[in-house]
Amino acid sequence: MSIESTVLNMAKAARAAAKEIARCSSDRKNTVLIKIADTLEQKASFIREENRKDLIGAREKGLSNAMIDRLTVSDAVIKSMADGLREVAVLEDPVGALGRSRIRPNGLQVSKMRIPLGVIGIIYESRPNVTIDAAGLCLKAGNAVILRGGSEAFHSNQALAGIISDVLSASGLPGDVVQVIPVTDRDAVKTLLAQEECIDLIIPRGGEGLIRFVVENSKIPVLKHYKGVCHAYVDESANLQMAEDICFNAKVQRPGVCNALETLLVNASEAEAFLPRMGERFMKAGVEIRGCAETCRILPDAVAADESDWPAEYLDLVLAVKIVTDMEEAMSHISRYSSNHTETIITSDYHRARRFLREVDSSVVIVNASTRFNDGGQLGLGAEIGISTSKLHAFGPMGLEELTTTKFVVMGDGQIRN
Amino acid sequence: MSIESTVLNMAKAARAAAKEIARCSSDRKNTVLIKIADTLEQKASFIREENRKDLIGAREKGLSNAMIDRLTVSDAVIKSMADGLREVAVLEDPVGALGRSRIRPNGLQVSKMRIPLGVIGIIYESRPNVTIDAAGLCLKAGNAVILRGGSEAFHSNQALAGIISDVLSASGLPGDVVQVIPVTDRDAVKTLLAQEECIDLIIPRGGEGLIRFVVENSKIPVLKHYKGVCHAYVDESANLQMAEDICFNAKVQRPGVCNALETLLVNASEAEAFLPRMGERFMKAGVEIRGCAETCRILPDAVAADESDWPAEYLDLVLAVKIVTDMEEAMSHISRYSSNHTETIITSDYHRARRFLREVDSSVVIVNASTRFNDGGQLGLGAEIGISTSKLHAFGPMGLEELTTTKFVVMGDGQIRN
Repeated sequence: MSIESTVLNMAKAARAAAKEIARCSSDRKNTVLIKIADTLEQKASFIREENRKDLIGAREKGLSNAMIDRLTVSDAVIKSMADGLREVAVLEDPVGALGRSRIRPNGLQVSKMRIPLGVIGIIYESRPNVTIDAAGLCLKAGNAVILRGGSEAFHSNQALAGIISDVLSASGLPGDVVQVIPVTDRDAVKTLLAQEECIDLIIPRGGEGLIRFVVENSKIPVLKHYKGVCHAYVDESANLQMAEDICFNAKVQRPGVCNALETLLVNASEAEAFLPRMGERFMKAGVEIRGCAETCRILPDAVAADESDWPAEYLDLVLAVKIVTDMEEAMSHISRYSSNHTETIITSDYHRARRFLREVDSSVVIVNASTRFNDGGQLGLGAEIGISTSKLHAFGPMGLEELTTTKFVVMGDGQIRN
Repeated sequence: MSIESTVLNMAKAARAAAKEIARCSSDRKNTVLIKIADTLEQKASFIREENRKDLIGAREKGLSNAMIDRLTVSDAVIKSMADGLREVAVLEDPVGALGRSRIRPNGLQVSKMRIPLGVIGIIYESRPNVTIDAAGLCLKAGNAVILRGGSEAFHSNQALAGIISDVLSASGLPGDVVQVIPVTDRDAVKTLLAQEECIDLIIPRGGEGLIRFVVENSKIPVLKHYKGVCHAYVDESANLQMAEDICFNAKVQRPGVCNALETLLVNASEAEAFLPRMGERFMKAGVEIRGCAETCRILPDAVAADESDWPAEYLDLVLAVKIVTDMEEAMSHISRYSSNHTETIITSDYHRARRFLREVDSSVVIVNASTRFNDGGQLGLGAEIGISTSKLHAFGPMGLEELTTTKFVVMGDGQIRN
């Protein structure tokens, strides 16, 4: 069978499976999630064996040690995947919940009911744990899912998906609720992205190249973020110790992730008091500072920033620093260069805190805390399938609720329209 | 200037204007809406003059009387546009409202704030009142809007948009919050649909041909419905008088609209008791019935339905009727043929009512009331900009809230991540 017809059949099977999983009770979905978790642990040696094939391939291809590390499925990784599913099982199921209802003058009772989106396509790169995380969240929200992982993780993903489908079938549910595309070339992705009749949403996870490819080729709505150029603004009224701790945490705690700090904006009135200590702490931690002229005057070890530093997502121990005259200038800098991902202000001023929260146009806007909190788990969503910087449908971390939508339900007693 | 650069400049101007209108207070937006309403009435003779140019053109092109009627802007139409704006002015402003907040174990307070979407593009056909209705709703929700109306209404739309922009400017707001594309060819639409950097959402309103053209060509998310193939299912426990009144209202009260009834499904156990009276009432009202074999046996004047009748949106005094053995069969028929727009069940059975509400996958699902209630005003949304049968972001009638999105706001006291 051609790749095209394989993907087409998968999309149709997913649409059919979605109808069944959509009306499945929470109890039943939770039982399946826990059973998958148990089975993953029972079949650990089989999973490791399949993973070994990928690791051998990766070494032959000469992948870096870091990439091989991300690809490796150890017993600890299996345990963490299984525990992740058990956590999803205890999350509250959004499906079927009714929102606040309105009674219309004619007595009609109108409310909105949460319902699954339908079929979700997830396109991701190497780490095999995404196969389990994404499948678990989609299943719990009552959706069918088609997964397309990276070619390096081919055998691991097939093994994991096979286990899930077996458990689904053994539980009397369609195995096609979770499918992994059994080929790895990009034509399969293109075909997937054209099935707008059968697939409701595409979520790409990976580097900017992958995401741009998906956006360019998709006929289906895509929720994504390209990058996180996150800002912290240290206001003139800031508690400087707090500012230092927050900025240090935001930059250094895990520099390679999308919610790490990339640009620090400092109010001119605080620069002399704040930057020398902050700069020393950063430099001790190995952070390279790319500063505006004024920053370089205060911090002689800083490198002069050029225009390319302001929109940069370093994902590394590098930080752009700019001194601004007021919050106005900080907000216009953010408006111009931010990726609408995460911004924080460190301030003690009530009015400016309120204005920053209202006017900064990013998916997560923070007062007096680290940018690293833009994360579904940290914000109390339980688990997340990704972060959206697109405004439609979901803006920010996407948890179970963002994998659902609502329909109107109307209860009447014979009302007709005049 | 070429069409392309005209549209490009408009898109950029809209993006800039969106930033200003997004932070405008409700009071100020409401004052502007009321001022626009007053100015429309003051400039009625100018509007009618410009509209006359369109009417002359329409007669030269040989448009039907019905179309000329829709195009005509009388004093009564102007009054109704102005009153519409005054109604939007008193609606509650969703922008800035905070949802239920969560306190995280570390003390972070997390909630979601409603924010405008940004820039909305609306592409519509002849009726000039859409220019005012759409502009009013978008403005109230804090968005900038680019409107592209039909070529027949060119002068009317330009006149209306000019009045809005003048009032905006006189009120100290950017006139570019509301713009009408000053050319009517399809290339302008194509250019508009490619401005994904500047436009956040496209809403097409009109016939299926226009909507398909927009979906095919858009790089921007589109909220739309192609058609409304609405069903009523008369259950075996239905109050037959209620069923008759609801079905009659749904089909006959305004047959040309998307929430009118197109297919009636009748439980076999009620068919002999229900269909003769219902059929007579329909036929007296001039409704042609296209029935399944069993329907034609009970109603000898019915025409035999063929396969093309089940997915048909007649928008006319025609009704497809099918007898089904149970709700199961009714729901699979709906699942196969419905356009996910509006379906109603007439029943007295608690369990089946609950199941119908849960399992029917349409934007508005109703028990014991007319399909004609799928309408923003009727469901208490105040006013609507259209109905979506796409599941992402909005499913069903779209009011002010559906023209906004949410961001996360996080208030801390120095929290950092471990």
